[in-house]
Amino acid sequence: MSNHLNDDCIFCKIINGEIPSFKILETELNYVFLDIGPTAEGHTLIIPKYHSNRMDEVPDKYLAEILPLAKKIAKAIGCVDYNILQNNGKIAFQHVFHVHFHVIPKRNEEEGLGIGGWPRVERPREDLEKTLQAIVENL
Amino acid sequence: MSNHLNDDCIFCKIINGEIPSFKILETELNYVFLDIGPTAEGHTLIIPKYHSNRMDEVPDKYLAEILPLAKKIAKAIGCVDYNILQNNGKIAFQHVFHVHFHVIPKRNEEEGLGIGGWPRVERPREDLEKTLQAIVENL
Repeated sequence: MSNHLNDDCIFCKIINGEIPSFKILETELNYVFLDIGPTAEGHTLIIPKYHSNRMDEVPDKYLAEILPLAKKIAKAIGCVDYNILQNNGKIAFQHVFHVHFHVIPKRNEEEGLGIGGWPRVERPREDLEKTLQAIVENL
Repeated sequence: MSNHLNDDCIFCKIINGEIPSFKILETELNYVFLDIGPTAEGHTLIIPKYHSNRMDEVPDKYLAEILPLAKKIAKAIGCVDYNILQNNGKIAFQHVFHVHFHVIPKRNEEEGLGIGGWPRVERPREDLEKTLQAIVENL
């Protein structure tokens, strides 16, 4: 396998052709294929050809290409409404530990992503200012 | 306003400085700020300086920068687990009709994005092949 792939990763094996997939396209940096357990018709995954659990570990050159690819795919699927989702960590609903971006058509209430929780955290202005300052200092 | 902004859009007004925001950073192409109704501390929005309802209408040069920015923000927030989410269309949970990418820390079950639906659509292999063919033809 390429230096950036992992022998034990199912998505790396898909990239490598060891495991077959419904491939839509690939570039030098990324691989695009249908999710075989779709939550809506056309549900697509975009994965970097760089093994990593988390988005923040992937080099920028891979990441820079992903949203232009997602745009191309959304148009090719022909869906009007859709969600782009990428999960980091088991608690954040990640199941395969190779970074993947979902393009999920949303044609009706019955299919696609359902958001079940969006708890509003009450944050007074002073708290937001502290959070802002902490983030800016870490940039 | 710039040619690419819209006088009636709240996010364009934030970009333009007409409405104050908790700005983390901005570049020539994108603007990054805290969500004032966060679902978790550090909940951040990344928006292109280009008014558009939908991700697939945004020129690639804006999109190419967004995930590298999201990576930088995730690191600066210091969250380990998080979700990247972008919604297109009211049925897909879009509330402000200017493209925005959420970076949402997920520290525990009580905060952040909750996925409430991920219905598995049964798609036999032949159907997946038809879907694949249709998408590839539209590329």
